[in-house]
Amino acid sequence: MTVLILTSDQDVTADMAVVELNARGIPVLRLDPAELPGGVDVSGEYAHGVFQGHLSVGGRVVSMGGLRSIWVRRPGVPAARARAASAWLTEEASQALYGMLRCTDARWMNHPDAARQARHKPWQLWLARECGLPVPATLITTFPRVARAFAERYPDLVVKPVSGAHPGDGALAVPTTRVRPDEDYRDVAHGPTLLQRRVRKVADIRLTCVGDRLFAARAASGTPEVPGIPDIPDAADVVDVRFDPDAGPWRPVSVPRRVADAVHAYLTRSQLAYGAFDFAEDADGIWWFLECNQSGQFGFVEIETGQPIGRAVAEWLAGEPLGPHTPRVTETGSAGPAGSPRDTDPTRDTDPTHP
Amino acid sequence: MTVLILTSDQDVTADMAVVELNARGIPVLRLDPAELPGGVDVSGEYAHGVFQGHLSVGGRVVSMGGLRSIWVRRPGVPAARARAASAWLTEEASQALYGMLRCTDARWMNHPDAARQARHKPWQLWLARECGLPVPATLITTFPRVARAFAERYPDLVVKPVSGAHPGDGALAVPTTRVRPDEDYRDVAHGPTLLQRRVRKVADIRLTCVGDRLFAARAASGTPEVPGIPDIPDAADVVDVRFDPDAGPWRPVSVPRRVADAVHAYLTRSQLAYGAFDFAEDADGIWWFLECNQSGQFGFVEIETGQPIGRAVAEWLAGEPLGPHTPRVTETGSAGPAGSPRDTDPTRDTDPTHP
Repeated sequence: MTVLILTSDQDVTADMAVVELNARGIPVLRLDPAELPGGVDVSGEYAHGVFQGHLSVGGRVVSMGGLRSIWVRRPGVPAARARAASAWLTEEASQALYGMLRCTDARWMNHPDAARQARHKPWQLWLARECGLPVPATLITTFPRVARAFAERYPDLVVKPVSGAHPGDGALAVPTTRVRPDEDYRDVAHGPTLLQRRVRKVADIRLTCVGDRLFAARAASGTPEVPGIPDIPDAADVVDVRFDPDAGPWRPVSVPRRVADAVHAYLTRSQLAYGAFDFAEDADGIWWFLECNQSGQFGFVEIETGQPIGRAVAEWLAGEPLGPHTPRVTETGSAGPAGSPRDTDPTRDTDPTHP
Repeated sequence: MTVLILTSDQDVTADMAVVELNARGIPVLRLDPAELPGGVDVSGEYAHGVFQGHLSVGGRVVSMGGLRSIWVRRPGVPAARARAASAWLTEEASQALYGMLRCTDARWMNHPDAARQARHKPWQLWLARECGLPVPATLITTFPRVARAFAERYPDLVVKPVSGAHPGDGALAVPTTRVRPDEDYRDVAHGPTLLQRRVRKVADIRLTCVGDRLFAARAASGTPEVPGIPDIPDAADVVDVRFDPDAGPWRPVSVPRRVADAVHAYLTRSQLAYGAFDFAEDADGIWWFLECNQSGQFGFVEIETGQPIGRAVAEWLAGEPLGPHTPRVTETGSAGPAGSPRDTDPTRDTDPTHP
């Protein structure tokens, strides 16, 4: 039974999992849909009541019926590198490839429909709250007067994109930024705007989930704030850990039981096999849900914390443990420095108050 | 409780259902996502553990919590008519609108995820067969030698697009066409090609499904064939009822019980509330599955047959019968000419042989 990995040539994260699978003799087929047709071939026949599909890369042919799992990592746009590339050919190649793969019994990380649903941030906020995760008060609106009224109730706000960065399109990445108290909200009418009560965070949390295994990492904020002392944001104040040069480093941290339960519920209801959650940890130790990226990177966390995330992905794809590792519900990683005493403080598993 | 209809201004099919809903006093909100932002506004707040969303068109504001159903008819691309239209604004508007609507309890016709899955023709062929519908032998391939071998086994073939016409993009509509016996299959390598054993049809069947109600219509073929007399196809031979000026007219026909059961199973597994099935009826009366279009038109069938499909859509959206009409599992329509005796011949409910 083969593991299928859909990704581009340049993908060191996929490389990490492939090394693990190769070492255990699990067959892997790696291909980029951008090379269909041309470098990649596909074929499926429906006759006599059965479907038989095949994939081929570099002369190697694999039966779709022999796929144990499919990892949708960073696939290119189907037919993007074809000689006669066009929107029509992309549609044809996409339907042929994904339409046939949908007919298999393979397990998906993640299924395209689950991935698509999971990218909707308004739905993420709703589901997170449904599952018991604390969510900062949030408004998404095109009404300037509603934005102004929200800012009166929650004077300390951040603004961020509704959609987040689109996979594969770095140009759409916009950092989360603080809002000035005297903000002019008239332009809200020209595009849906997401405003969120700013969490006065002491750390960022990245919780990477692989099946039912959770890997949490914590990065102390670059500029810790003094509670009780209000500060006035600058218009260019970025509070996004991705753009904060002083944040970190990432260190393993244990997951409070209540958060673990809520995250498992989130993954079950969203039908995701993989998800990277971002939380903001406040001075009370509460983890505030910010988002769940179904295709979030884990390489930087693994490198800094030593948590065996790539191996966990490989084990999930293989559908079986690959070695002596014993899965646990929550784990702090088998390598890397231990967290501070505060990181494992059981009192952090506190019932969050409403925002 | 309000019915939300997402469609463009010019949509007579939506008009038919709106008339039915208006006549019964069911509130309807009709909007085109292309006009968000600008003509359409959206707002949602997540605070104190609850989500409250609102939609607004022309000064009228409707609570998302008060939506009973959502009809995704022919919606425009979000933000397409905004003053500052861009790919980024489309992504933001799409996430804001559909992301919030996903948080409601409303019933969808059809849910975007179900609709997306249902458009994959390779998956349709597989699911139809799984549900017990007869499917003509079909090949989808980029291998010229596999195409040649298939043509040797099934000398009488048609070729059609893998993807079908994309909703809202008429430029991608390509008719189903017969394949010459001496076809050169080398170009198959340049794009996935769908070849299918040609059904020697005596009629086309359009089976429109609204919830659990089925409306079948039959159009006799324009050029009936004489069984046993082989004919040589012309390269330009189109066998697509959409492009056949001699086909029809559409007449109501009853649905064989076995087909009705299979279609109900198909709709359940695909989670579709609406689907328009196309079958080819052969000389033995067998209905061969060709495709299921989750957004297929029904206006032309209703006009020619008198079947109350628009009313059935309105009743589904209302979540309740709108009048004295009693739903049945299969129906031939309350108006229009009766079918020929052959149309209701119970022997047509035959166990189909494998192709």
